[in-house]
Amino acid sequence: MGPVGTESTQAGGRQRAWKNSARLADGREIIYFDETPGLNRALARDLRDGLAPVPPPGTCSPEQAVRWDPLLDEWVIIAAQRQERTFLPPPDQCPLDPSAPGRPTEVPADSYDVVVFENRFPSLRGASAIGGTEAGGPAKPPDLDDGMSPQRPGYGRCEVVCFTSEHSASFASLTPRRVQTVMEAWADRTATLSALDGVEQVYCFENRGEEIGVTLHHPHGQIYAFPFVAPRTRQMVARSRAYAAQAGRNLFDDLVAAEQADGTRMVTANDHWTAFVPPAARWPYEVLIFPTRRVTDLAALDDPARAAFGGLYLDVLRRFDRLFGTPAPYIAAWHQAPVTDAEARRDFGLHLQVFTVRRAPGKLKYLAGTESGMGVWVNDIVPETAARRLREAR
Amino acid sequence: MGPVGTESTQAGGRQRAWKNSARLADGREIIYFDETPGLNRALARDLRDGLAPVPPPGTCSPEQAVRWDPLLDEWVIIAAQRQERTFLPPPDQCPLDPSAPGRPTEVPADSYDVVVFENRFPSLRGASAIGGTEAGGPAKPPDLDDGMSPQRPGYGRCEVVCFTSEHSASFASLTPRRVQTVMEAWADRTATLSALDGVEQVYCFENRGEEIGVTLHHPHGQIYAFPFVAPRTRQMVARSRAYAAQAGRNLFDDLVAAEQADGTRMVTANDHWTAFVPPAARWPYEVLIFPTRRVTDLAALDDPARAAFGGLYLDVLRRFDRLFGTPAPYIAAWHQAPVTDAEARRDFGLHLQVFTVRRAPGKLKYLAGTESGMGVWVNDIVPETAARRLREAR
Repeated sequence: MGPVGTESTQAGGRQRAWKNSARLADGREIIYFDETPGLNRALARDLRDGLAPVPPPGTCSPEQAVRWDPLLDEWVIIAAQRQERTFLPPPDQCPLDPSAPGRPTEVPADSYDVVVFENRFPSLRGASAIGGTEAGGPAKPPDLDDGMSPQRPGYGRCEVVCFTSEHSASFASLTPRRVQTVMEAWADRTATLSALDGVEQVYCFENRGEEIGVTLHHPHGQIYAFPFVAPRTRQMVARSRAYAAQAGRNLFDDLVAAEQADGTRMVTANDHWTAFVPPAARWPYEVLIFPTRRVTDLAALDDPARAAFGGLYLDVLRRFDRLFGTPAPYIAAWHQAPVTDAEARRDFGLHLQVFTVRRAPGKLKYLAGTESGMGVWVNDIVPETAARRLREAR
Repeated sequence: MGPVGTESTQAGGRQRAWKNSARLADGREIIYFDETPGLNRALARDLRDGLAPVPPPGTCSPEQAVRWDPLLDEWVIIAAQRQERTFLPPPDQCPLDPSAPGRPTEVPADSYDVVVFENRFPSLRGASAIGGTEAGGPAKPPDLDDGMSPQRPGYGRCEVVCFTSEHSASFASLTPRRVQTVMEAWADRTATLSALDGVEQVYCFENRGEEIGVTLHHPHGQIYAFPFVAPRTRQMVARSRAYAAQAGRNLFDDLVAAEQADGTRMVTANDHWTAFVPPAARWPYEVLIFPTRRVTDLAALDDPARAAFGGLYLDVLRRFDRLFGTPAPYIAAWHQAPVTDAEARRDFGLHLQVFTVRRAPGKLKYLAGTESGMGVWVNDIVPETAARRLREAR
């Protein structure tokens, strides 16, 4: 099966990136974001034999489902088929490299700038941007008749975002121009996946480093389209609502203003972005990056903010790498508003949270009994100290 | 400074364990739980020189504080002095071994059964059971005048529980009699610490295995007395309240009854305890252990339940170790009711949560972008499959 559909548009309306989409041999969608026009990605056919076709969506099996935790009022994703996912392959078998003669990979092209495709081992599936929304839908809070722990289809979508075709690069080694292309991909995917029926939240993130369980070294991130609002987001929405009722102001705006005024936890800033260590940081080195003009999600960022992000974010990532003289294992998490809650969308403030699990040379922060058992975080580093060290890591 | 106070009572009123307390050279309290009477622990003086005295309590410094996260409505513990804590010492320098001639340790006795002492590198401090409650108190939710992220003293108490004087043992290798002595210690500490002003929750737990960051191999657990109710507990209390309002029944009772009736996730049970994999398990292998008769906390367990716990829990731990033919890294977390919320105490159901981070031989479950960034758990193992494997691991 070759490409079944292609399109060639300019994401976002300006000449920032050229978008083309096609299908992989097993039916998954692949979307190229190119920095130069005129590449006909439909010609790059996936010639792999023997890839099992993507199973029919919308079925609810114990192996791929979301289940409701009756003690905590949260959905948990069960994704048993992921146990067999590719695990630290040797460099010459990296599935995220461009394809080469005799070595077909997940990307049937001989090079790419930024490419997004549906994860071969997805935690959630069924939501399709090309074929129309398939069976499935949001995981609504159950009622008493559903039993103690009802199960729903593991509906949603999981995408992989490759930041560069260079296997040995890292996000921190990208150019600002490339970061802008990645931003175009994130914004496009946020808008596209948010428009699918049953998607309640879109989450763009990057895991970097074996220390946090990364199974592929090639620079890449992931995008999850959830059929529910994530617990952390629910908490922020509830807090922001309570704060507005109490203070008559916006929680996110007030937090950023307070950090700018205080200054002790600031790391860096430019005209469009502000980066600071949160006052009650959970992680040894944790930074929140807010756009100066509050927006709902990545798709709502204007052109100047998109263009100004790369320089600032690369600066932050390189400071993380300099902290201990070795590449930092980190998680970068874009916090966006829920998709269908109009009040939450009005008040929410998009931000990026970046944190490393390294607390000292050779020592990692583990989530042990207090964190994993009770949800109580213990941070060994005073947030102001972390901010000072990050400011000094130039 | 030698022992400043001793007492000799029988914890719980029956001849289960003999309790003696004393002081270490730096002023910290140490409490022995002996299986035989008549040991005068006051004679075992801590002769170490050069231990810095415990700093005066109740002060609020940035290095030891709790801070309120304005985005999530949760307290985070900042404990900077812990960065220098003892990290994987060689076996002949283990600070939890009994003292030997020329080698004083944290336990100034030549052997012990179960011993509890205040952590030398505590995350929380100030709450004292011998000297009366010192300055400090509960961390109340702040109001607007407190600023975005107020700080409070890092008040509370952190204790270490040594399960045996045998350095190379593990909890799973203890005798049922010894588990009962550990249970007496847990129940005593729960009652004692709950009685201190400003303590809002008592948390007994064990981290086992370098894979989850354990820095001392000697078999031991920990007890935290928090100045707030932990986030996970708050969630369970809120859910249990909503369930009672909606269903007119008790959430914990109904969950246990549903699992007993269904059976597919049961692991083992006896007359006083039931062990099952939770229906929406977050961890590859996770077991909840509930007493048959619902109680508020460990101190409220009756004698038959205390006596029956060891056999069942040892069975569960040994199943974990057999899963992959090698000792399982695990976290064991006792979930108890909040201390001062009368309604929550009436409804809460004490239970033990045990889970391993190992998902397959040589593969760990990492908390990466979805879990650490969003609070969304992805479990690779179907809970019914986990339960079957645990049932078969005999």
